[in-house]
Amino acid sequence: MALKRKLKRKSSVHAYVSVSLPNDISCAARIDIGRQQRRGFPEVIYCPGKTLTQIKRIAECILRYNDVVLMTRADEKVFRVAKKVSSKAVYNRDARLVYIQKQSPVRCKGLILVISAGTSDIPVAEEAAVTAELMGNNVERLYDVGVAGIHRLLEKSEMLKKAAVLVVVAGMEGALASVVSGMVKTPVIGVPTSVGYGASFSGIAPLLTMLNSCSPGVCVVNIDNGFGAGYLAGLINKK
Amino acid sequence: MALKRKLKRKSSVHAYVSVSLPNDISCAARIDIGRQQRRGFPEVIYCPGKTLTQIKRIAECILRYNDVVLMTRADEKVFRVAKKVSSKAVYNRDARLVYIQKQSPVRCKGLILVISAGTSDIPVAEEAAVTAELMGNNVERLYDVGVAGIHRLLEKSEMLKKAAVLVVVAGMEGALASVVSGMVKTPVIGVPTSVGYGASFSGIAPLLTMLNSCSPGVCVVNIDNGFGAGYLAGLINKK
Amino acid sequence: MALKRKLKRKSSVHAYVSVSLPNDISCAARIDIGRQQRRGFPEVIYCPGKTLTQIKRIAECILRYNDVVLMTRADEKVFRVAKKVSSKAVYNRDARLVYIQKQSPVRCKGLILVISAGTSDIPVAEEAAVTAELMGNNVERLYDVGVAGIHRLLEKSEMLKKAAVLVVVAGMEGALASVVSGMVKTPVIGVPTSVGYGASFSGIAPLLTMLNSCSPGVCVVNIDNGFGAGYLAGLINKK
Amino acid sequence: MALKRKLKRKSSVHAYVSVSLPNDISCAARIDIGRQQRRGFPEVIYCPGKTLTQIKRIAECILRYNDVVLMTRADEKVFRVAKKVSSKAVYNRDARLVYIQKQSPVRCKGLILVISAGTSDIPVAEEAAVTAELMGNNVERLYDVGVAGIHRLLEKSEMLKKAAVLVVVAGMEGALASVVSGMVKTPVIGVPTSVGYGASFSGIAPLLTMLNSCSPGVCVVNIDNGFGAGYLAGLINKK
Amino acid sequence: MALKRKLKRKSSVHAYVSVSLPNDISCAARIDIGRQQRRGFPEVIYCPGKTLTQIKRIAECILRYNDVVLMTRADEKVFRVAKKVSSKAVYNRDARLVYIQKQSPVRCKGLILVISAGTSDIPVAEEAAVTAELMGNNVERLYDVGVAGIHRLLEKSEMLKKAAVLVVVAGMEGALASVVSGMVKTPVIGVPTSVGYGASFSGIAPLLTMLNSCSPGVCVVNIDNGFGAGYLAGLINKK
Amino acid sequence: MALKRKLKRKSSVHAYVSVSLPNDISCAARIDIGRQQRRGFPEVIYCPGKTLTQIKRIAECILRYNDVVLMTRADEKVFRVAKKVSSKAVYNRDARLVYIQKQSPVRCKGLILVISAGTSDIPVAEEAAVTAELMGNNVERLYDVGVAGIHRLLEKSEMLKKAAVLVVVAGMEGALASVVSGMVKTPVIGVPTSVGYGASFSGIAPLLTMLNSCSPGVCVVNIDNGFGAGYLAGLINKK
Amino acid sequence: MALKRKLKRKSSVHAYVSVSLPNDISCAARIDIGRQQRRGFPEVIYCPGKTLTQIKRIAECILRYNDVVLMTRADEKVFRVAKKVSSKAVYNRDARLVYIQKQSPVRCKGLILVISAGTSDIPVAEEAAVTAELMGNNVERLYDVGVAGIHRLLEKSEMLKKAAVLVVVAGMEGALASVVSGMVKTPVIGVPTSVGYGASFSGIAPLLTMLNSCSPGVCVVNIDNGFGAGYLAGLINKK
Amino acid sequence: MALKRKLKRKSSVHAYVSVSLPNDISCAARIDIGRQQRRGFPEVIYCPGKTLTQIKRIAECILRYNDVVLMTRADEKVFRVAKKVSSKAVYNRDARLVYIQKQSPVRCKGLILVISAGTSDIPVAEEAAVTAELMGNNVERLYDVGVAGIHRLLEKSEMLKKAAVLVVVAGMEGALASVVSGMVKTPVIGVPTSVGYGASFSGIAPLLTMLNSCSPGVCVVNIDNGFGAGYLAGLINKK
Repeated sequence: MALKRKLKRKSSVHAYVSVSLPNDISCAARIDIGRQQRRGFPEVIYCPGKTLTQIKRIAECILRYNDVVLMTRADEKVFRVAKKVSSKAVYNRDARLVYIQKQSPVRCKGLILVISAGTSDIPVAEEAAVTAELMGNNVERLYDVGVAGIHRLLEKSEMLKKAAVLVVVAGMEGALASVVSGMVKTPVIGVPTSVGYGASFSGIAPLLTMLNSCSPGVCVVNIDNGFGAGYLAGLINKK
Repeated sequence: MALKRKLKRKSSVHAYVSVSLPNDISCAARIDIGRQQRRGFPEVIYCPGKTLTQIKRIAECILRYNDVVLMTRADEKVFRVAKKVSSKAVYNRDARLVYIQKQSPVRCKGLILVISAGTSDIPVAEEAAVTAELMGNNVERLYDVGVAGIHRLLEKSEMLKKAAVLVVVAGMEGALASVVSGMVKTPVIGVPTSVGYGASFSGIAPLLTMLNSCSPGVCVVNIDNGFGAGYLAGLINKK
Repeated sequence: MALKRKLKRKSSVHAYVSVSLPNDISCAARIDIGRQQRRGFPEVIYCPGKTLTQIKRIAECILRYNDVVLMTRADEKVFRVAKKVSSKAVYNRDARLVYIQKQSPVRCKGLILVISAGTSDIPVAEEAAVTAELMGNNVERLYDVGVAGIHRLLEKSEMLKKAAVLVVVAGMEGALASVVSGMVKTPVIGVPTSVGYGASFSGIAPLLTMLNSCSPGVCVVNIDNGFGAGYLAGLINKK
Repeated sequence: MALKRKLKRKSSVHAYVSVSLPNDISCAARIDIGRQQRRGFPEVIYCPGKTLTQIKRIAECILRYNDVVLMTRADEKVFRVAKKVSSKAVYNRDARLVYIQKQSPVRCKGLILVISAGTSDIPVAEEAAVTAELMGNNVERLYDVGVAGIHRLLEKSEMLKKAAVLVVVAGMEGALASVVSGMVKTPVIGVPTSVGYGASFSGIAPLLTMLNSCSPGVCVVNIDNGFGAGYLAGLINKK
Repeated sequence: MALKRKLKRKSSVHAYVSVSLPNDISCAARIDIGRQQRRGFPEVIYCPGKTLTQIKRIAECILRYNDVVLMTRADEKVFRVAKKVSSKAVYNRDARLVYIQKQSPVRCKGLILVISAGTSDIPVAEEAAVTAELMGNNVERLYDVGVAGIHRLLEKSEMLKKAAVLVVVAGMEGALASVVSGMVKTPVIGVPTSVGYGASFSGIAPLLTMLNSCSPGVCVVNIDNGFGAGYLAGLINKK
Repeated sequence: MALKRKLKRKSSVHAYVSVSLPNDISCAARIDIGRQQRRGFPEVIYCPGKTLTQIKRIAECILRYNDVVLMTRADEKVFRVAKKVSSKAVYNRDARLVYIQKQSPVRCKGLILVISAGTSDIPVAEEAAVTAELMGNNVERLYDVGVAGIHRLLEKSEMLKKAAVLVVVAGMEGALASVVSGMVKTPVIGVPTSVGYGASFSGIAPLLTMLNSCSPGVCVVNIDNGFGAGYLAGLINKK
Repeated sequence: MALKRKLKRKSSVHAYVSVSLPNDISCAARIDIGRQQRRGFPEVIYCPGKTLTQIKRIAECILRYNDVVLMTRADEKVFRVAKKVSSKAVYNRDARLVYIQKQSPVRCKGLILVISAGTSDIPVAEEAAVTAELMGNNVERLYDVGVAGIHRLLEKSEMLKKAAVLVVVAGMEGALASVVSGMVKTPVIGVPTSVGYGASFSGIAPLLTMLNSCSPGVCVVNIDNGFGAGYLAGLINKK
Repeated sequence: MALKRKLKRKSSVHAYVSVSLPNDISCAARIDIGRQQRRGFPEVIYCPGKTLTQIKRIAECILRYNDVVLMTRADEKVFRVAKKVSSKAVYNRDARLVYIQKQSPVRCKGLILVISAGTSDIPVAEEAAVTAELMGNNVERLYDVGVAGIHRLLEKSEMLKKAAVLVVVAGMEGALASVVSGMVKTPVIGVPTSVGYGASFSGIAPLLTMLNSCSPGVCVVNIDNGFGAGYLAGLINKK
């Protein structure tokens, strides 16, 4: 299978990356290269379901027109491919993120606090934290403060109040987001995780918990979507 | 439609109550009259789906062989029927309970504390509280202490620790059960309620929350099942 | 039924409102009167499942210690009760909101734009818009711009970019939130509505759509939760 | 295990293919050999759950009475078996299709346009495209034009209008089908894919999105059913 | 409440209809008046959730720029409002449709056959049939031919083969769509209905049945969506 | 609205009954008049969703060619219509059945035993019992023997063993079917009912219980489908 | 781990088989050895979740007191263990059954016909067929007659009418059971299978289809439960 | 990866355990070291989703301040790590538990009886039993007494009555909890298991069964949550 790279600048908004298909049916991934300008951060590569070849080409294209490229749900193999794109590639195993930064982002004021209920929620929490850091935010972490021992959270109430935005990552019953929100004046982004078993139904339980929060000021992103939470926290903080 | 009442003592364990059906097909409700002796509390009448005639006959039969008869999810009409069975009939509107007590129950030591997250959860909480009282328990109530203002609960931590069993009634996200459980050494019975809207799915959200509690020591009964929670609390307290 | 009002200041954080129950079992709604100070906006009364007596007492209590009281999912009867609490009571039928403001809120800079996909989504959209206005925000509305005629939205792209926060209210398939988010640099709060039939499953379809948005920067609140979206938009804008 | 092939022409409509079972219980796959004549295209072999022996025999039987045999969800092993049936066997890895054509199909006028929202949706999109091509249709592809960057789609509006039928393949929130449908006068076939995670519930989210499309003219096939969409597009185009 | 009608031609593509809201917050329904030109049929009014005032104004606006206005899920009250818009208003009770035609549509060749499984499915079937007729199609009906007596369908096989497009409307288990599809060379549009009880789950059972059809060539629209099926059948037939 | 009755014998298998529709679109219910001969019992009229006019015409047609007509889920109004069809019409309120028998059915040997778990399940149980009786079966009833007092069932073990087929009707958790099946050598037909609340989900709980029976020999029909269970019991008993 | 076999005849109804556990906690599987006498067929071993040691001991115990032992969902390893129990052990790979028969069962009159919709459904169909054969029934098979080519079934209508009981095994949309039932006077047992993908939800689609059958006389067993269907067919046929 | 252990006593209630993360982002698991004092039993380590390093450090920290550490859902690897923490580590394979006890717990009076429906439910039952034993309870086991042979349970009715608390572990339809509860005066804790297939939906069927128990006195914990049931039984017994 011969792969031919045809990167052509189409317009100011997107570029084509050809991805060779069997039997000479060639199709092009249409990279949204103007996204950094339009939305403040370039297109991000969600790795599952993409071949390494596709990931490499898309990364090269994004990097050509933007300051950073971020690959989510990445593994060791994706990292090796990213290394070929640029020696600056960094792999954060816990966060399952690979990224290449051409230059540091503009620093934002305001603190983003990422909280996790349990130790098993840390990978998703790290995905949120590292994403927000890549967007130039100041991020602090407060992990393993689930409601089974509520005093762990209460002791940190000053830390909570200091934050401009809070990301609360919790699996099992996901009750932490409501409790945190009741203690602060600022927006809380709930991230339900698939940590748990049985009637957690791979994250449905904490998802419903967070959607039904009796404490206003909580919003929710998809199950295990640490990236989305970090990104949204960045948008709110930059506001 | 001619109704003929044929109450015949069958054995020590149950009695037949004929319930006349159209077209002369007569069928008998088989009352489990030995249940008070066997289980400590007589059979209870769940009213929805039963005709007033059925309720009256079953109540008469239970009362003949037991000290008390309890009708759950009862309304004004059931109360009127119960009044005909005995002038001692009592109607607790909030708890939707009608009951007739021939004599006061044996008093149990130990406190049962019934907690509700919101004002709208009170009917279910009252169903639990009154049921436990009918079984001879000492019951206290702590209502409207949902996690949106966690300090309301924390202030009452001594009250929580005093209780032998706790019943936690909560709709919406139902996070209260986990938080309460984390503060005590005693069993917590969670009662999810159908209070809420949208993604609470008529009580599925708090049901899942309570089933997935990160705090061990929480068990769950059916949605809106205040009776079941009060009954179970009574069994545990009598232990 | 004799109702006795016992409003006693307990501490700086909450007050008790007794709500008389049948059979002399008196229970108290524990108003979180310190919430305005702690969270920036006082406790809100979600009306369904509460009696008019409960609503009146809770409203009186909140108003005593705060600048405003807001009643959601309110109807004509709630309005009549609110009128008795204060002649300043206002009823917004579309938004199903009743509120009493002692004084105007501090004005916030920044525009909140509330967008609806269809005409049937307007009540939820109005709930969001009026809530945000009560918090002192400048709110604009853009209604009936669903994706079946995408040009209606595209024409307004400058209006979208002007907003500091966007609330997107949509039922049926709820695709609007993703499209809007792809056009702006700012946070988008998606509110799925129960508008639709069949496989919309009372709002599950747009809820899932918004949770799975391919465009980062979208977060979601509960189905039909206009209040929650307006409140969160206010928190973000005040940041 | 001795396998005996007993291909006997039964009637004009179907043939038996014996599939030997353990313990001498022989059963016959009843091939619908008249399907090409009755429906315009012969029976298709859905490979999962079938043994290679079954696939081989069914393929031989179909090919004997028809012009083409198509195997869906096929892998390398199926291809090897198909090679034994005929040296003309072709394997399209992306589309997971193996097929053997005895002669080229009659060409249809009219363009079928296959659109995908993301790069990960391409395998399903290719399944649709190749199926339609095997039926004699002229197919064009437009991939990676998801609604997160709606301008990518809008730029191609002339291409959309040119098509007689459109197939829209999308996972995650699946919003693309509604937007495309709003831009054309022709039928749109939505294919939800299982691309996504968490609350996409393996394709339920885009399935519901497409079923609830606010834009009339959209119909839906099963999750990941590229074959079905391509087949239906062929039927519509041949009309 | 003073209502002021402000119909202003905005551009060639849409018009504003002001819908007065309480408290002087005026919002405008953004009618997609260019839809007939763009899509071949003007915007349709889905009545549930809209006030009669909204329906009247939207209908007037659509009719001003298009040849026909169609109101779905309409009742007697909607008809009375439509009569005020134009004396030509027609109410089809079975199909729950109200429409006003300024002139007859261009006639299409090709037959659309609308089939129903049971008598209770007729309202949805009529919604499909009348919609297709309003688009200028020749429609025939074949009702009450469910699979419990398959000979009723088989007798009509010539009628089935004559049709260019078939709409199959079925509740309960919805098996009819697969059987019909297996007998023809043309597209079949399945419309699951909410007819049934228990495990039909208001139409989920036939919806899943049709989505999983073992017979290729079947596509599906939303539960009870007769309008959508008739509209799509019209698009396919006009092709 | 002028209704014209056009009963024409079409063939030996079915007849048309015209059902007038508004706007002169006449459609015909296709009665499967040969069903008694083919299947042993004529077509049955499921009343919900049918107009009284439709029910009357279908009943007349079925009765013309068969010995009996049965209307399920019937109410007082259906009975009045049936009375006009024949003075022999009988209404069983508990079973919600109306039927007209021209002659008594052939008697079958073998006993069908219909068992219910609770009093609220009796309507469904009666539907099963009366249906089986109409088919000529000898039916006995054993009601209110739920597993909360298992001795009630055990006392009747001889009665259980005497039956050729057993129908077990149960709501709530539906455990009765498994227990009964474990005590007999004969087929058990489980009928889950919608009796219950909360997590019974209108009958899903007992449906799943019966489908997962650890005791082989249990089969299941739809929730609340007493008719189907009685009919199937009749088929098995006639075998 | 030392395993000690302690088979002791306890009573006429069951025996204990000790299954050694780690840490000297010994527990006994309580074999229901009287089941053949009580129910007509001995206890059956469902293999998943049991260790080979458990399976061997339970098989030995059952075989000691009964004429046959049947192991379902068995694989090669189970067969090897069964060989050690008795050299008469037989393994039917397609049906995933292992069995040991001490003597042939009493032959029953009456034919059981096992029908499958597709080739992939054959394993479940064989499980049903072989189970019924082990109970002494005469079984015929009719495979691959799904509704996509309904003529394949219609050709066999005489075969269908000949059967005393029919087992219909179908995945995907599962429509076959209804169609078959409409052609016969005898009971039809539907077995939904997990064959399919996407919206078949591992067998939910055909399960719902069969539960909602518009043709009375169909009952349903669990998804993929070929054993249960064969067993029930045997009970019905023996009646 | 250099791991640095920094165990520092923070206060009387919890300690930090640093868990090194890649890229020098160090985060601390916040061990709730005061839990034994507050709740009667120390924090428990749910192993899935945690790295071996995390498990080791958390175990060391818990053990430093408490008498016992319990690891649930543990495998061989966890055991090996636990061995390094202390040579007293014990691995119970059936219960999937690893624990280290510094000293024996205080013995409680009262018997806890753990009952399982089938042999495949034993791992969950053992998890409950061993947990309760670790808390100092006297535990007896009664396994394999499912309702398919109800006499196995009835024979043991004296054993049931002797227990202070009963834990009932059951998969498939989970009917056992209701039956047991109907025979005793004491609390029954139901543990649904994921044993089963098809419509058991990984434990949803027995979960719903137990939640809907017609016998009051049953409560439920999460699917497969043997630990939670044993823990709760311990709390109730200690009461």
